[in-house]
Amino acid sequence: MKLLFIVMDGLGDRPISDLGGRTPLEYANTPNLDKFANLGMNGLLHVIAPGVTPGSDTAHLALFGVDPYTYYTGRGPFEAAGIGLEVKEGDIAFRVNFATIDDSGAITDRRAGRIKQGTEELSKLLEGIEIDGIQFLLRAGTEHRAALVIRGEGLTDKVYGNDPKVEGNDPPHFKPLDESPEAQKTARILTSYVMKAKDILSKAELNQDRADKGLFPANYLLIRGPGKVPKVPNFEQEYCLESACVAGGGLYKGVARMLGMHIIEDERLTGGTDTDLSAKFDVTLEALNNYDFVFTHVKGTDNFSHDGNYKAKTEFIEKIDKELYRFLPENFEQDLAVMITGDHSSPCSFKDHSADPVPVVIYSSDCRVDKVEKFGESYAAEGNLGHLLGKHLMGIALNELRLVHKFGA
Amino acid sequence: MKLLFIVMDGLGDRPISDLGGRTPLEYANTPNLDKFANLGMNGLLHVIAPGVTPGSDTAHLALFGVDPYTYYTGRGPFEAAGIGLEVKEGDIAFRVNFATIDDSGAITDRRAGRIKQGTEELSKLLEGIEIDGIQFLLRAGTEHRAALVIRGEGLTDKVYGNDPKVEGNDPPHFKPLDESPEAQKTARILTSYVMKAKDILSKAELNQDRADKGLFPANYLLIRGPGKVPKVPNFEQEYCLESACVAGGGLYKGVARMLGMHIIEDERLTGGTDTDLSAKFDVTLEALNNYDFVFTHVKGTDNFSHDGNYKAKTEFIEKIDKELYRFLPENFEQDLAVMITGDHSSPCSFKDHSADPVPVVIYSSDCRVDKVEKFGESYAAEGNLGHLLGKHLMGIALNELRLVHKFGA
Repeated sequence: MKLLFIVMDGLGDRPISDLGGRTPLEYANTPNLDKFANLGMNGLLHVIAPGVTPGSDTAHLALFGVDPYTYYTGRGPFEAAGIGLEVKEGDIAFRVNFATIDDSGAITDRRAGRIKQGTEELSKLLEGIEIDGIQFLLRAGTEHRAALVIRGEGLTDKVYGNDPKVEGNDPPHFKPLDESPEAQKTARILTSYVMKAKDILSKAELNQDRADKGLFPANYLLIRGPGKVPKVPNFEQEYCLESACVAGGGLYKGVARMLGMHIIEDERLTGGTDTDLSAKFDVTLEALNNYDFVFTHVKGTDNFSHDGNYKAKTEFIEKIDKELYRFLPENFEQDLAVMITGDHSSPCSFKDHSADPVPVVIYSSDCRVDKVEKFGESYAAEGNLGHLLGKHLMGIALNELRLVHKFGA
Repeated sequence: MKLLFIVMDGLGDRPISDLGGRTPLEYANTPNLDKFANLGMNGLLHVIAPGVTPGSDTAHLALFGVDPYTYYTGRGPFEAAGIGLEVKEGDIAFRVNFATIDDSGAITDRRAGRIKQGTEELSKLLEGIEIDGIQFLLRAGTEHRAALVIRGEGLTDKVYGNDPKVEGNDPPHFKPLDESPEAQKTARILTSYVMKAKDILSKAELNQDRADKGLFPANYLLIRGPGKVPKVPNFEQEYCLESACVAGGGLYKGVARMLGMHIIEDERLTGGTDTDLSAKFDVTLEALNNYDFVFTHVKGTDNFSHDGNYKAKTEFIEKIDKELYRFLPENFEQDLAVMITGDHSSPCSFKDHSADPVPVVIYSSDCRVDKVEKFGESYAAEGNLGHLLGKHLMGIALNELRLVHKFGA
């Protein structure tokens, strides 16, 4: 038996009067999701704990059974891993923006005009930089985004970055967050690195071309979100499942890669509302041939939530639903367990994450079917899974796969 | 948005055959409570943990998100704070009774004839006592009640008090509970203090008057319930809510004061079954103008439970219900979230606290309404909050206020 785990980002919501007091998920016409709800076990999932609002990073750790209170150090390591940097335990990883600084030293654009092309070329110019025996590994991501890993002795993530958050000001200095020599050193070498990078980037042909064309040159690095790369459990070893990740967003790929899953790369998976959902679930279907466990992440639901656009969220859920026919018991050739949930709620009325639990459905061919007939927040509250915690999810799913590790004898 | 938190002490109960197998809360006619249940989210609250019977002190800590297993050292500190003694971290605090001792040295009345007047005057006579560099701060409460704080180096709460619990016997000696020098010292200086206090109190004019009138003189101090004052989290800082407490009972005010809430004093709030409920909820209404969070405590429900008087409990619940119209969405001008529960169950058949969960309802204007239509133990079991723990309550309530602290990014 195989296990498909579909996570719709920010899926959970609150009643919306324009939708007759229903949530986008309840209002959406979702015959396939409802079929899983009807044939499966339903419940309400507190991804981290009741009353705790998850970030996207901590939420995904919890969903995979990894305690974020133990393993989460910051977003940097997961972003770096998502971009494809090979991070090692003890590395310090950061999120980076290519940005624009003017001659007076003020940041004129935090995203270098949302530069589309050329950051890979620019990051190559910065290859091989070492300061005081510390290696600096920069890798470009999509648009202006990049990640930085620093590797060596005597480093810490207890530093505050140089992103002014607003434009028009000089970037702040890197600040040690405690009085340890490690924090002093890390702040100092990051300062040197950014100066050195600025010199190299300012002279880069690509940036001179951009300036000539009136575009913002990508001549500066803004660095934030430090995290010491933790030693996380290996998902495949932990659960004895050959595992793959189908996602567009860097963070989700990063979490999956750090946990040891295979990342399926496909440029049609954009991690946005423009993602090709048909392609995403084709790739998922194919991955199920080769792996025991496939994690498929859809980001768009959360994007629409942050915009407060409940109509678009509803329609997007319907579009996802349409693609799920592939995994219905009557259409999928093998014995497949399916688990569908969100990583957190993002009510359109909040335009942000919330602590509301998310509906979850777990289907397998001989699961304890409950009375729930539709997939949704209020229906799930009546399901036989009750209220459950993210950290318990994988155990419950493995039980459906009959991959039972007895505790005791 | 503001948050009103109403706690009815000992609210939860068990089915009573005289009430047709319903609990007092279920049997009572409570249109306003039912309205909140109907418009809100319902569940069953395990204030500390399933199967654990809370005390009133530990229950309230848990309800405010403060782990009693970490912070609770004994009842003394909360009683002392409730009476208005300013307790400091490290102080040892005790509950005290003014009592009567006869010439033979036997306790003839543990409450000095439930003395109504004059204990404040008596406690003034004991001001400024210091023994071996330790300060003794006594403050009178209602009737025979008082609190004592001892402050200085080398003290502990590992002592057993001098309350014989029954009358007719000599008071027992203070006993160190371990072999530490601190316990020896604390027991020794308490013994000296009580002797000194006896001398002073016996000579007090007020007590000679009482003796002349045939009343029990308040000539002795019975000291119990030691607790080292813990450093508890500050509620206002923790939750970023300006907070007020509307309560009559000293303990509840004490917990609230120690957590940093503002205590609204009003002599109409007696903390008993004679409390002026209309005044209590008028004061609450006014407090909601000035504070983000108001905690209103009603004690009478528990008093009737301890008497096993389920009829009076039922009627008292109806009286409370009548006063809640002020906070219904149609009557309250601002956006108000309302959370109503008990601090524990006190079944009339037990005449004491029990571990049965208590019903809880949380209402806000865009909460996920469930199907529950009435407020009560058996109805709450069908609500969409499921079973929840006291420690999660504040997080869930803050989520209704959209005061969201994301864990992760």
